[in-house]
Amino acid sequence: MLPFKTLIVIDRNSRQPLYLQIANRFVGLIREGVLKPGLLLPSSRVLALQLELHRKTIVAAYEELVSQDWVTAIPRKGIMVASNLPVIRPRSFQTPSSPYGQGPAFSFGSIPTVALSRHETAPPGQLIINDGFPDVREAPLEAWVKESRAIIQSPRYHQLLTYGTPAGSNALRRQLIGYLTNTRGLSITPDNLMVTRGAQMAIYLAAAMLIKKGDYVIVGSPNYFFADLCFEQLGARLLRVPVDEDGIDVEAIEQLCRKHKVRMLYVVPHHHHPTTVTLSAERRMKLLHIIRTYRLAVLEDDYDFDFHYSSAPILPLASGDHGGNVIYVGSFTKSLGLSVRIGFMVAPAAFLAETARLRQLMDLRGDNLSEETLAALLADGTIERHLKKSGRLYHERRDQLAHLLRMKLGNKVQFTEPAGGMAIWVTFDPRFPLSVISGKAAAMGLRITGGEHYFYGTTPANALRFGFASLNHKELNKAVGILEKITVSFAGNSENIKFDTKKDQWKN
Amino acid sequence: MLPFKTLIVIDRNSRQPLYLQIANRFVGLIREGVLKPGLLLPSSRVLALQLELHRKTIVAAYEELVSQDWVTAIPRKGIMVASNLPVIRPRSFQTPSSPYGQGPAFSFGSIPTVALSRHETAPPGQLIINDGFPDVREAPLEAWVKESRAIIQSPRYHQLLTYGTPAGSNALRRQLIGYLTNTRGLSITPDNLMVTRGAQMAIYLAAAMLIKKGDYVIVGSPNYFFADLCFEQLGARLLRVPVDEDGIDVEAIEQLCRKHKVRMLYVVPHHHHPTTVTLSAERRMKLLHIIRTYRLAVLEDDYDFDFHYSSAPILPLASGDHGGNVIYVGSFTKSLGLSVRIGFMVAPAAFLAETARLRQLMDLRGDNLSEETLAALLADGTIERHLKKSGRLYHERRDQLAHLLRMKLGNKVQFTEPAGGMAIWVTFDPRFPLSVISGKAAAMGLRITGGEHYFYGTTPANALRFGFASLNHKELNKAVGILEKITVSFAGNSENIKFDTKKDQWKN
Repeated sequence: MLPFKTLIVIDRNSRQPLYLQIANRFVGLIREGVLKPGLLLPSSRVLALQLELHRKTIVAAYEELVSQDWVTAIPRKGIMVASNLPVIRPRSFQTPSSPYGQGPAFSFGSIPTVALSRHETAPPGQLIINDGFPDVREAPLEAWVKESRAIIQSPRYHQLLTYGTPAGSNALRRQLIGYLTNTRGLSITPDNLMVTRGAQMAIYLAAAMLIKKGDYVIVGSPNYFFADLCFEQLGARLLRVPVDEDGIDVEAIEQLCRKHKVRMLYVVPHHHHPTTVTLSAERRMKLLHIIRTYRLAVLEDDYDFDFHYSSAPILPLASGDHGGNVIYVGSFTKSLGLSVRIGFMVAPAAFLAETARLRQLMDLRGDNLSEETLAALLADGTIERHLKKSGRLYHERRDQLAHLLRMKLGNKVQFTEPAGGMAIWVTFDPRFPLSVISGKAAAMGLRITGGEHYFYGTTPANALRFGFASLNHKELNKAVGILEKITVSFAGNSENIKFDTKKDQWKN
Repeated sequence: MLPFKTLIVIDRNSRQPLYLQIANRFVGLIREGVLKPGLLLPSSRVLALQLELHRKTIVAAYEELVSQDWVTAIPRKGIMVASNLPVIRPRSFQTPSSPYGQGPAFSFGSIPTVALSRHETAPPGQLIINDGFPDVREAPLEAWVKESRAIIQSPRYHQLLTYGTPAGSNALRRQLIGYLTNTRGLSITPDNLMVTRGAQMAIYLAAAMLIKKGDYVIVGSPNYFFADLCFEQLGARLLRVPVDEDGIDVEAIEQLCRKHKVRMLYVVPHHHHPTTVTLSAERRMKLLHIIRTYRLAVLEDDYDFDFHYSSAPILPLASGDHGGNVIYVGSFTKSLGLSVRIGFMVAPAAFLAETARLRQLMDLRGDNLSEETLAALLADGTIERHLKKSGRLYHERRDQLAHLLRMKLGNKVQFTEPAGGMAIWVTFDPRFPLSVISGKAAAMGLRITGGEHYFYGTTPANALRFGFASLNHKELNKAVGILEKITVSFAGNSENIKFDTKKDQWKN
């Protein structure tokens, strides 16, 4: 007989009942292959003697094993390790014999992707340039947790936390209407507003409601890659329209509308992603005209409205005369730097009601505690104060990065200082390919995310969204210093190369 | 001239700069239609005198208005309310002139739905019978907030909160592997596991990866309605298979597999939703055989594993020998009663990697703070203790409800005491239609959610998932007492009607 006294180790101080400890240990032994299928186990009396336990404990353990189908009670023979039940084939933990080491035998769809890690953390001692994300060290996390605590301690908390619709908490929607009216001049009612998990979910939902396989969708070139991927995943054929220093080319949009039945336009008028350019007033006016004329469904992504330094922000298309054709999307994830992802979608009520149903199928509803917390922080002015404070900080950092780029990298890079936001779009001289620079930088303790991917589907740009918001004075200095060292070490004479602003490229 | 002294009200205690207060008030007046397009505004000198402010303040306000395109500076004439920019057409807040009062002019998809409010809150003084949800008064919210606070105060918090992948936090995935192994006997590695927003997102993601328009999907009859809706939304043709007291009919599944090219089987083996029946060991074995034979992709929804009272839980199909064909889905939302929605999906690595990409397009990633908090509470045993404690409580409540139903409703209802979970599936005598009972109950302070919808697409059942977990002793008494009063007031003689357990229906 096997040495059960050794195999079955019992912890009398454990909260777990003895019989369950024994049963669990048996399960382990069966799965590890120590106890083979068909093996007859000792009778409860014999095992009780060996383990110096009451027989009832062993009987209870065996009953547990029987009820879990690990063993079979054979009349007049005893308890046998099950041999015929597929669920209990002996296997060891994390070996190829796990069913999950085999499959799947079924086929499944594939999802377009880019090789990109956006929200990486820097290993200790490493700096990271992200593509434009707030400084999480500045995020109002203390206020957030304090408010959450206040909510759960309030007498009405269980009412707050049990109700909920896929469109989001009523309190937050009320606060958001005030916020969007005051900051963006939107004219909306609660049934025009849905709270989502970040802007990305709003983009996916709107696109999924609109796009059918084969539909034409107009996007900028370059464009926010996750939007491109999302539309392609939903079956769209992308029509790419140039983005220049005045924003997306609206004449080109109109030409496409004349030529094709266009399903949707995706546009980032304010601090375009990735290039940070802002749509000019003239083009905005023209675009609103096109939207009305062609009854064009527009998905307006205004991820970056809350940070503007050089001038007041332009008003979104959603505040203009668009005949109810603009679906407007924004986010607090980007503006607060909290790990909590809360975004929103503004749209005509009939569209939103239908979209809320889709959201319900994808993700029943949001996190009430987070939504109520944000509502309270909007109501008491915490969010407004935080946005002002971090806006001042990021303004300084933008100025500092622009200064450092001019001083240390000079004509090796080209950029236009953005009017706001959290990143500068920096185009590198083609003699300094970003793929090479990234590799060298990583070896020197600087990791660069983003860049190279923005022309997804077409020609990659040798350009980078250099996020300045998350780096303090010292870190910005260090980061640009490393880039300077790398570019200085490159061979070649930079004097003969000039940047052609019209063509947005370098020429020899 | 207009009475600007009256129209422009200034708050000298406001944090907002004076010039911005003035500019914002002007925007309001333009939008309300008080200041009409083309109107010439007073010169900065004149307005400064009127408002008793420094002229520079008025100039700054006008500059702000110009930059926002609300007014136009006309050389040698002055500042005029803009007339030509569509974005600044005067309109008042929340009137039909809002563009969102008009649209949309574009067409969009429609989403299947059921008229059902699941997570309603009871108005003060009202009781609510939900379809099986924990008692939020018992949820470990204090521990949750305390742990969140500890995380944000830890030196590594900003590292924790900035990294992240669509598959979820590494710490939580490590903890979950331990939890799933210990409780469910799963044999998996981290690349078999993704953290989602509740089980619903996991269901949607898996279905979206598998289902193409026209594909056959097998579901139980009745079935969890949000799963049905989700599959139909994705274009599936549903094949319905009966569910009896031993769970889903596996012979019928095999017949369908022979007849059709079946894309997927959705199954809830443990406390089936809605009927709470558990798949028998024999059928489970047979089903695993079918899965392997037909290489059938299975979506196993195990939303209710953590609560079992009468016996040990059965092991999921996912722990059996399924050849890597089972996608296993579960949730902490249902087991903890937190407003935080965290679920998970277990699947073969290749499938999961692709699914993570789709999740990224829908919802970049989860909420790191919540994921880290859950990881910490799993690691320190809080979750295990909470599940034990609430399991004991819900066990008592199940027994109490079963007792009350027998005592007070007698042969007017039919039910089988479930082995676990949070609801009893109660079938009412057809002389007591639930639609009528619900209406009468609401008038008596008892709201009933669920029921009637479970045969979505086929015949409605006169049955209800009577959630007992969220109601304490007094509340259960009161709820069943109200139902008793209602049924007593019904006309008709109940003696002639008997329940046919074989056909699961009442007969005269």
